[in-house]
Amino acid sequence: MSQAIEFLVPRESVLSRRAAIIADLADLLPPECLVHEPRGLAPFETDAFISYRRVPLAVALPRTTTQVAAVLKYCNRYDIPVVPRGAGTSLSGGAIPQEDAVVLCLSKMTRILEVDYANRAATLQAGVTNLSISEAVGIDGFFYAPDPSSQLACTIGGNIGMNSGGAHCLKYGVTTNNLLGVKLVLIDGTVIDLGGKHLDAAGYDLLGLVCGSEGQLGVVTEATVRLIAKPEGVRPVLFGFETCEEAGACVTDIIAAGIIPVAIEFMDKAAIEICEAFAKAGYPLDVGALLIVEVEGSEAEMDAMLASIVEIAGRHGVKTVRQCQSATEAALIWKGRKSAFGATGRIADYICMDGTVPLGKLSYVLNRTSEIVESFGLRVANVFHAGDGNMHPLILFNANDPIEAANAEAAGNEILKLCVEAGGCLTGEHGVGIEKRDLMRYQYSQADLAQQMEVRAAFDEKWLLNPSKVFPLDGRA
Amino acid sequence: MSQAIEFLVPRESVLSRRAAIIADLADLLPPECLVHEPRGLAPFETDAFISYRRVPLAVALPRTTTQVAAVLKYCNRYDIPVVPRGAGTSLSGGAIPQEDAVVLCLSKMTRILEVDYANRAATLQAGVTNLSISEAVGIDGFFYAPDPSSQLACTIGGNIGMNSGGAHCLKYGVTTNNLLGVKLVLIDGTVIDLGGKHLDAAGYDLLGLVCGSEGQLGVVTEATVRLIAKPEGVRPVLFGFETCEEAGACVTDIIAAGIIPVAIEFMDKAAIEICEAFAKAGYPLDVGALLIVEVEGSEAEMDAMLASIVEIAGRHGVKTVRQCQSATEAALIWKGRKSAFGATGRIADYICMDGTVPLGKLSYVLNRTSEIVESFGLRVANVFHAGDGNMHPLILFNANDPIEAANAEAAGNEILKLCVEAGGCLTGEHGVGIEKRDLMRYQYSQADLAQQMEVRAAFDEKWLLNPSKVFPLDGRA
Repeated sequence: MSQAIEFLVPRESVLSRRAAIIADLADLLPPECLVHEPRGLAPFETDAFISYRRVPLAVALPRTTTQVAAVLKYCNRYDIPVVPRGAGTSLSGGAIPQEDAVVLCLSKMTRILEVDYANRAATLQAGVTNLSISEAVGIDGFFYAPDPSSQLACTIGGNIGMNSGGAHCLKYGVTTNNLLGVKLVLIDGTVIDLGGKHLDAAGYDLLGLVCGSEGQLGVVTEATVRLIAKPEGVRPVLFGFETCEEAGACVTDIIAAGIIPVAIEFMDKAAIEICEAFAKAGYPLDVGALLIVEVEGSEAEMDAMLASIVEIAGRHGVKTVRQCQSATEAALIWKGRKSAFGATGRIADYICMDGTVPLGKLSYVLNRTSEIVESFGLRVANVFHAGDGNMHPLILFNANDPIEAANAEAAGNEILKLCVEAGGCLTGEHGVGIEKRDLMRYQYSQADLAQQMEVRAAFDEKWLLNPSKVFPLDGRA
Repeated sequence: MSQAIEFLVPRESVLSRRAAIIADLADLLPPECLVHEPRGLAPFETDAFISYRRVPLAVALPRTTTQVAAVLKYCNRYDIPVVPRGAGTSLSGGAIPQEDAVVLCLSKMTRILEVDYANRAATLQAGVTNLSISEAVGIDGFFYAPDPSSQLACTIGGNIGMNSGGAHCLKYGVTTNNLLGVKLVLIDGTVIDLGGKHLDAAGYDLLGLVCGSEGQLGVVTEATVRLIAKPEGVRPVLFGFETCEEAGACVTDIIAAGIIPVAIEFMDKAAIEICEAFAKAGYPLDVGALLIVEVEGSEAEMDAMLASIVEIAGRHGVKTVRQCQSATEAALIWKGRKSAFGATGRIADYICMDGTVPLGKLSYVLNRTSEIVESFGLRVANVFHAGDGNMHPLILFNANDPIEAANAEAAGNEILKLCVEAGGCLTGEHGVGIEKRDLMRYQYSQADLAQQMEVRAAFDEKWLLNPSKVFPLDGRA
């Protein structure tokens, strides 16, 4: 009995509870849909945030909504936390498990259930990857618009959980603007259908509420998304400036003129150098800031929009305007941009912030960001969705140096507070997850947070779904 | 004491409670912001639904968020129902009061607080009318996109409550797609800010949830909305067909080809005749169905899109294609369409349904709608947002004939059930209100409704805000 003193619960009880849960889950799922051996659990310890690792109790990999419902109903009955997971590409730790949790991973639910062009819609299981939607309908001239940099791997279920964005969301909106319906399994196993292929819906917009709720209100097993017809042509154009201020002011003036290109991406000198070294994208190296502006439509439309943009850029002292001469060059331009995080990872450890700011504050926030990071003795590279005001400063550091790691985290927090002070918010597309939960008090008043938690409790009274995310750990109502 | 037997509560108590509430409200509001005399209350008895009338206890007309908060806090403390109201243009009875309710009317809050082109946003008090937003920014080349037919009168607060749409929402989306933030007063008087001029927001999308919640989650006092740059040109074009089937199939094929005009409005023969007689819009009278397709952009863009649409219309036997020759003609075309309800009201009483259907079912639902209405011995005119699948059958009847009135309501219910069966929903833009509350069981399972009511209770535990709307009266959780 002396051993029992070391544990709040007798060790035998903990072990036998774990064994009992695994045995129970084995009754609910086929053998290939349940992982509980240490080697099998290892890939589920963390996600793309990687700052934390926890080995979960077990991983359920259901193939059907019925199986998802059975697992949730079981976990709800026995008060077992559940961490929903797609491909584990979360940059905010949204899919990192707790040790006492069952990970509910939707990655085996990969069927495209219906493509319906008359309603511009496709219905998919939650584990379908983002890119495979566009691949499935590309031959018919359609695509799915939100395009996170991880689109080769990330799933539509995860995109819904985090309300994911991407470079092309300036024109087409983020996930919530392209989501028509979901099948949602509640924590008690009830299955509800939200939205559909029709306009709007009677009653409350629970679909919009679920999108971006980080797996805390229920588990999405199917989604119906909007398809968009491919434009006649697309053309990314590079605009090089001496300074970030000029590039930032140019972005603000493009938007203020009412011009909405498909994308306006921003790279500072550090980001240009990192990406060019990796991707050989043909970026100019003699500039201090680069905008990738993509326009689309007919040749005439693209020419007209570009003429307006070139005129605005001229007012801000643009140094280089480079149109690509071929589809290969265009693909290279995007390859450089989309590999920014990977290319950065080759030269240093980094953390990527995701704050958003009103466009009028872009230059100010960029300047202050540099000052903040330098004050911690670190370097920063900025590569982000400028048209949306969605900043992504990458703070470079050496993860083997605990002081640098702590400084990077502190600098990141200062930057996010800066975004909030400037009238923006903590996250544009990566979600709160673990990373930003303690900063939520900085964004929201106690009344704001209390109301969000009331809504959460209306779906999951016992806080079993992804329990340690989004809200400050000490702040539960 | 014998009188008391007639009342659940002694009559004196009822009267004195009313007097006490009015006296208390008079302490919270300046004299010109409180209405309680019978003559003053009359305009607040009903809204554009007009099928029901109830004289409310009192009407509060606050000028500030602080006053709104004071009234709500007071009503919450003393369990007094509150019915929020904008301009009272609801077609579903969303603003009709109860006899024991205080109407909280935002119509004195009419200030435009900020116009910010750099962030494509305007911030307004809730009582600002829809059209006055576009009027305020029109001189600078911008507009606010959602355009209900009642836009001259209806307020942005009411638009948010009902998630209002309009003819031009095919391209630009409905209210929820154009809303960036609100100031929301909760039933206990707490003021929270949702959203803002930045992309997305950390935590749950309570902004999206509040939009379309019919005043049941809180009272919006300020709104920040998206501004859009006016296109270079716009051109409405008339397409006349022999039959509704041909016109419906043409709409489906336009959308399935990935073409998104600004608007695709549909009128059947009855609607054409009614509108033409009223507005002299120049509609062809020798066709069985008419589409108003509006394209926008440069001359070249409009030409290109129209060429594609004309080609598709040709495949469906289009009989007449008429481009307007002047801005005056264009304005007349829209005047005809937007006056459809008023023009119908000149020749008969009518009820207007608001169901939506997936586009592939448009022709089928139109046919069945005619059969249903004829089976009740009544006539129907169809005039609606076809590109969105948002039907508006107007069922014509004589309100002085109680049998016709009952038949009209019964036919309406059958039509809405038909929309749900076809994969659509009860309401596209008018809301549930009183009109469709009992049909909600037809759209939703008990689990669906229970979850919506849980969410409602998370904002307003005592069900004081607009209490008798949206949900079936016998269905409260």
